[in-house]
Amino acid sequence: MTPDIVRAAFAELIVTDLDRSRWFWIDVLGFVLTATEPDALYLRGYDELSHHCLILREGRQPACARLAFRVREAGDLGAAETFYQQRNLRTTRIPAGMTPGVGDAVRVEDPLGFTIEFFHEMAHADRLQQRYDLRRGAEVARIDHFNIVVPDVRSAYRYYTDLGFGLSETIEDDATLYAAWMYRKQTVHDVAFTGGDGPRLHHLGFFAHEEHQVMRTCDILGSLRTENLIERGPGRHGVSNAMYVYLRDPDGHRLEIYTSDYYTGDPDHPTLRWSVHDPRRRDFWGNAVIPSWYREATQVLDLDGVPRPLIKDTQTAESSVGADGFTR
Amino acid sequence: MTPDIVRAAFAELIVTDLDRSRWFWIDVLGFVLTATEPDALYLRGYDELSHHCLILREGRQPACARLAFRVREAGDLGAAETFYQQRNLRTTRIPAGMTPGVGDAVRVEDPLGFTIEFFHEMAHADRLQQRYDLRRGAEVARIDHFNIVVPDVRSAYRYYTDLGFGLSETIEDDATLYAAWMYRKQTVHDVAFTGGDGPRLHHLGFFAHEEHQVMRTCDILGSLRTENLIERGPGRHGVSNAMYVYLRDPDGHRLEIYTSDYYTGDPDHPTLRWSVHDPRRRDFWGNAVIPSWYREATQVLDLDGVPRPLIKDTQTAESSVGADGFTR
Amino acid sequence: MTPDIVRAAFAELIVTDLDRSRWFWIDVLGFVLTATEPDALYLRGYDELSHHCLILREGRQPACARLAFRVREAGDLGAAETFYQQRNLRTTRIPAGMTPGVGDAVRVEDPLGFTIEFFHEMAHADRLQQRYDLRRGAEVARIDHFNIVVPDVRSAYRYYTDLGFGLSETIEDDATLYAAWMYRKQTVHDVAFTGGDGPRLHHLGFFAHEEHQVMRTCDILGSLRTENLIERGPGRHGVSNAMYVYLRDPDGHRLEIYTSDYYTGDPDHPTLRWSVHDPRRRDFWGNAVIPSWYREATQVLDLDGVPRPLIKDTQTAESSVGADGFTR
Amino acid sequence: MTPDIVRAAFAELIVTDLDRSRWFWIDVLGFVLTATEPDALYLRGYDELSHHCLILREGRQPACARLAFRVREAGDLGAAETFYQQRNLRTTRIPAGMTPGVGDAVRVEDPLGFTIEFFHEMAHADRLQQRYDLRRGAEVARIDHFNIVVPDVRSAYRYYTDLGFGLSETIEDDATLYAAWMYRKQTVHDVAFTGGDGPRLHHLGFFAHEEHQVMRTCDILGSLRTENLIERGPGRHGVSNAMYVYLRDPDGHRLEIYTSDYYTGDPDHPTLRWSVHDPRRRDFWGNAVIPSWYREATQVLDLDGVPRPLIKDTQTAESSVGADGFTR
Repeated sequence: MTPDIVRAAFAELIVTDLDRSRWFWIDVLGFVLTATEPDALYLRGYDELSHHCLILREGRQPACARLAFRVREAGDLGAAETFYQQRNLRTTRIPAGMTPGVGDAVRVEDPLGFTIEFFHEMAHADRLQQRYDLRRGAEVARIDHFNIVVPDVRSAYRYYTDLGFGLSETIEDDATLYAAWMYRKQTVHDVAFTGGDGPRLHHLGFFAHEEHQVMRTCDILGSLRTENLIERGPGRHGVSNAMYVYLRDPDGHRLEIYTSDYYTGDPDHPTLRWSVHDPRRRDFWGNAVIPSWYREATQVLDLDGVPRPLIKDTQTAESSVGADGFTR
Repeated sequence: MTPDIVRAAFAELIVTDLDRSRWFWIDVLGFVLTATEPDALYLRGYDELSHHCLILREGRQPACARLAFRVREAGDLGAAETFYQQRNLRTTRIPAGMTPGVGDAVRVEDPLGFTIEFFHEMAHADRLQQRYDLRRGAEVARIDHFNIVVPDVRSAYRYYTDLGFGLSETIEDDATLYAAWMYRKQTVHDVAFTGGDGPRLHHLGFFAHEEHQVMRTCDILGSLRTENLIERGPGRHGVSNAMYVYLRDPDGHRLEIYTSDYYTGDPDHPTLRWSVHDPRRRDFWGNAVIPSWYREATQVLDLDGVPRPLIKDTQTAESSVGADGFTR
Repeated sequence: MTPDIVRAAFAELIVTDLDRSRWFWIDVLGFVLTATEPDALYLRGYDELSHHCLILREGRQPACARLAFRVREAGDLGAAETFYQQRNLRTTRIPAGMTPGVGDAVRVEDPLGFTIEFFHEMAHADRLQQRYDLRRGAEVARIDHFNIVVPDVRSAYRYYTDLGFGLSETIEDDATLYAAWMYRKQTVHDVAFTGGDGPRLHHLGFFAHEEHQVMRTCDILGSLRTENLIERGPGRHGVSNAMYVYLRDPDGHRLEIYTSDYYTGDPDHPTLRWSVHDPRRRDFWGNAVIPSWYREATQVLDLDGVPRPLIKDTQTAESSVGADGFTR
Repeated sequence: MTPDIVRAAFAELIVTDLDRSRWFWIDVLGFVLTATEPDALYLRGYDELSHHCLILREGRQPACARLAFRVREAGDLGAAETFYQQRNLRTTRIPAGMTPGVGDAVRVEDPLGFTIEFFHEMAHADRLQQRYDLRRGAEVARIDHFNIVVPDVRSAYRYYTDLGFGLSETIEDDATLYAAWMYRKQTVHDVAFTGGDGPRLHHLGFFAHEEHQVMRTCDILGSLRTENLIERGPGRHGVSNAMYVYLRDPDGHRLEIYTSDYYTGDPDHPTLRWSVHDPRRRDFWGNAVIPSWYREATQVLDLDGVPRPLIKDTQTAESSVGADGFTR
């Protein structure tokens, strides 16, 4: 019994000052506000026809409360429950409406330590794709993926393979799988793994249509004298071919504005394997990765809202491998 | 028994001068040449990892010899055979290798009069997406869709619904379905219907990543004093939100360079219905459609390679409906 | 005595409903408001460091009240006065401050029937080029040129040659000069002439930095269901190489969003002469010119604010010449 | 007597392997080849209507042999001669044709230690701006500026002020002028000064029309596995507002692909003064400057072709000033 997952659908981030988050995500980045609660904002991109792709909830410590996948049919909720219960993992049913716009859901603690939610139904939202008069900021079209930090990338790869994900790209050498990109929808990924102490959320990836929108995002942050919120890039990823920029929100949560990856829907889609020694894998233009990008990430909460203890990285850190082939 | 169709995969066009076609499709538009035969060229876009998305075969009269869909599993070939035989339509098995790079296939005459091929296996091609040094012309990434002319759009819609296609957008009024866009892969369409005398191929749609690539295509054609090959556009479609340009190849076959549509993979993806009286449906900027675009199209061949007789349009022509609501 | 003209600097348009004009020029197109008067708005582009490039003044009939050139030195005002007085044309001195932000000026009725103003000093405006957070609409950088309708293009060419303008491009045949582009600043033009009944203002040209900004302008107008304000384009001009779109403001005044022309500052800059029979001259992609674009234009006012009578076109109309070389 | 300088016109670089340079400048970057000599290549950009903007000459050591300014009239050559002779600096007359395509010239050793050439006449080259079919690589339109390393920026500023250059932007604090941008043509600069041991050539700046061309240049270098030739960027400069990338040619000569600066032709154009403590001055997105960018530069040759001895930097190095206001 495996749930038929459609795609990475939404995330819930705990932020410490909702007004400040509203400024960053809505005023600066231009996310669309679908709904508000006293302690939460429900946001979406301009192409999205469903209620939200991001929940910002005020709390005392920055954290990631859940990552949600949409499933194809109502019956997939039961399949998800079974999948995790068979692995002796905690699951819980969430009735429709507990999260605004979301139908019945199953929430679980997954083998990697993340709180994952599965749902089938979501309320529709107004179609704004062609409201060019409203476009602002990064002009985010839709959520694209979750990138998570795990102490053992190969284990994460096996678990998501069990969940029916395809493998689009990897970073590896003979001994180690340093990173992997896996998909359900027909893009490069819905989830990717970065090696490190985990479980932590590395970043949320949001798709924009054109590369100039990535540049514009940076220009706006410079205009506001908040260029410090640009952590890495813009650049072109070797992996995925995407033009990217990584930002940090006011709580340090990392997000990526991401564009120009490729179609992966064919049944025999071949995996692209990058050598960890190819300096182009992380930046096709050879620019060095900022150290914080490898080191820092968002802590995740368990089903009770308690921060998950970190498990130490059990593999060679990618950041310690030089282009010359030696590990430092 | 319905075959599980993955996507619009390739088309075969009959051209009357292969050298001239090579000039247009390869030298000017920049398509990648995978293989040649004395009378045929096998082409693909820069993102494509499979053998070809277009076959150009020399013959005496311009025509469309077949449109091919890829299916998810080998067993879907039998399902396709059954689907058409149950409808008393001709089918034939094509052994692997008859078409270079293509495995076992089933070829049929469909209810609309088109020769359709189903195949599961295709040879892989070199990954060129990141060979920016080789990019030329329109920088086509991949085939996107087939647009066909049919005398009765509603019948075509019903048939493709039976084949498992979703409906992303329509042009309609109370009485008539003028056009419809239907998908298997997670984009706006794999196939679309234009009302008119049919069966004819209206155009092949090819995806490019960025809007400036659409403009560049036109600039190149102007540079070569072949601007007459630009039939319509560039413009923004209301339907699909795509930036487009329509070209005519040296034999008059129409193609579209197409970018910036949207994700349709959610299970309850809502249909967008455009009024035939909204002048923005065909061009979001209100530019008039060139008359030849409604009138001219490519004849199609049956399983024996004989041109299909045309069936007269049985519905009101969209081109005769004015924005003021009156039919002319 | 010839005034040393720096560039086309600003225009004054009479509009019939200032609120509606404010909506179009500021809310939709994103022009920056420098100053207001009860009956007038003073606007500029994001790169402009001087007070305004456009005055919109409310009046009873749409018209162009003046076109203003900036001169290099204060003494050039006297030179301008002499230049026109020697040609027995009316001139008048305008004291500093009569137009907000503008120093002493000389206003004249020129040989073509236009009211032209020369000024040297203009108040500075805030530097907004790097306020990407404020950018909206067409993201106009600065005014670029005036395009005027004159009954005899060759006469207009001679007069502006006397004023020290260089000739960058023409449309011509053996017998007729159909159009000409002339410059003072180091771009393709500050002024251009279109043959027709004159004097009339054909359009004001505004420079944007990138081609996607031209497309975005159209997208916004489509979003607002005001796509009828897009008169022609977008397209690439053969002449000037500029990507363009022509809009009509709510009073019918025509403006162009214009980008990617070229440097003309070298002392021996060669003129590019287009044959009137080259279909690429007006649109490099071969798209036909909309008839209204040749026919309609804005009436101009004399020094007393009275509409100028029109002088009938004395030359073959460019719009009547076919690509096949015959005049129709 | 001051020569009336039109613009930065061309540079001569000594390269050690002409075939390798041909690969980089022509095959990769797409410069247009106007003429060849056994030991030299004459290159230009796609918009340039004059013979060359860059000479690559084979020699034993990488160096900059000369920087050339075009002057407005033939008589300006004498003015240039006088200007330098009055300052007791070496000058020499170069007859027309000694440099292919270049008329009579005056070559001097300037007060900063650079070999500067003044010329008035240059042969025209074919107009290729609208040959989009030929465009490749960085699609460079034209040379834009020379950036030079000098030990005393304030002295360089005074000397170029004497030569009639305007000052568009600076980096400074109360005590020190760290860098300055000065212009003759109507752009941000024809020459800029970077503080450091000099005289050395910091880089040659080449203008491209659109920002995506800067990205494409990097993508091509990544494709060729020569991403190490990308030294810094892409990014947005605070100074000049230009999108930039800095490359190093196979001999280590630095060049910049540069776009989207602004018009400076108004008589009272105001100087923009950046604090050395504003982290956005060198990169508007806050990305750190690569150390080699401050340290490394090309040696220059005197009138006899002998390398100029370096004079030690006499001022605080900009690279040693932190954003926190302290000098390190």
